Amino acid sequence: MDARLEKQLQFILELDQEKNIFRQTHLSGHGRNENDAEHAWHMAVMAYLLREYANEPVDITRVMLMCLLHDVVEIDAGDTYAYDTEGLKTQKAREDAAKERIYALLPDDQRAELQAVFEEFEEGGTPEAKFAHAMDNLQPLLLNHSNDGGDWREHQVTAGQVYDRQKKTRDGSRRLYALTDALIREHIARGNLRG
Amino acid sequence: MDARLEKQLQFILELDQEKNIFRQTHLSGHGRNENDAEHAWHMAVMAYLLREYANEPVDITRVMLMCLLHDVVEIDAGDTYAYDTEGLKTQKAREDAAKERIYALLPDDQRAELQAVFEEFEEGGTPEAKFAHAMDNLQPLLLNHSNDGGDWREHQVTAGQVYDRQKKTRDGSRRLYALTDALIREHIARGNLRG
Repeated sequence: MDARLEKQLQFILELDQEKNIFRQTHLSGHGRNENDAEHAWHMAVMAYLLREYANEPVDITRVMLMCLLHDVVEIDAGDTYAYDTEGLKTQKAREDAAKERIYALLPDDQRAELQAVFEEFEEGGTPEAKFAHAMDNLQPLLLNHSNDGGDWREHQVTAGQVYDRQKKTRDGSRRLYALTDALIREHIARGNLRG
Repeated sequence: MDARLEKQLQFILELDQEKNIFRQTHLSGHGRNENDAEHAWHMAVMAYLLREYANEPVDITRVMLMCLLHDVVEIDAGDTYAYDTEGLKTQKAREDAAKERIYALLPDDQRAELQAVFEEFEEGGTPEAKFAHAMDNLQPLLLNHSNDGGDWREHQVTAGQVYDRQKKTRDGSRRLYALTDALIREHIARGNLRG
């Protein structure tokens, strides 16, 4: 087999490990914890279906690619829960090291391309990155809402913490932020989020 | 909330159930069975990374969408193993009924659009559908290869059955079919596939 295809296949097999990185979010119907691959798949489909609500026109292929690959670094760095204050302090260093190791499995041109896609997502400056972040926030919110806010109750999350995280949703989609805001208010009223 | 967004969110929540549809393929490292959402995610990433090997130029967004959504019908119809002769007889009827129910959750325009994407995949006539089918075949083959052909041994699959299924891979990518052929020969030689 030629070296280029061999490298691509090595990266593809490496990605399989994302299916074993579990998140704090639970599947609907009070199911088990969700893993990174499932989360990424759901986000990519949502991005396509909800693209009409992006604040600015987006290159939907690039958004979908960001959604599909934004958690690759967690193969090494693990999942850092959005409200884990200690974990968040070391998250960037852990993820930067992972980014170097994992993308280096690819041929150089694809390594450069996909690292750039990941960095664009991390920096969050483009319309595509902003909309992908809106999906990254909305997807677990919808699951958690379907489960009566159980993930928030389990971790005693406050409304302030959720609003702080969801700021990025507004940058990507004012319409979906309005939905988010309505859901947060509902869960405050129901006692699932601490005021 | 307006009716359009409400319908989109209902469909998105319905999709969550794909994470509970388990396949015969096992994750690499002799892991657990893989589910449909993980399989679809892996296929979509593979399609992007390997698109240079498609026999004909493809609209990669459409290929990725096919990969992401091709198993939605299994929420109702369940997974039919590629070598389950009895199950294959009723597969089309079960999946057609599922297609009608699930896509009807969407607003009419998106229902029509995504049903057309699914039907194009099923018919397999376009370059995009052919390449998506190549991914649908190659993804479990790579995992099974990484697990020493365990899925074939478990189900006593024959080389003829695998070659019959993999015909579609050649229609999408002659290069990836050459890889597939080499892997099948290796597993025949190692006794993992019956001759």
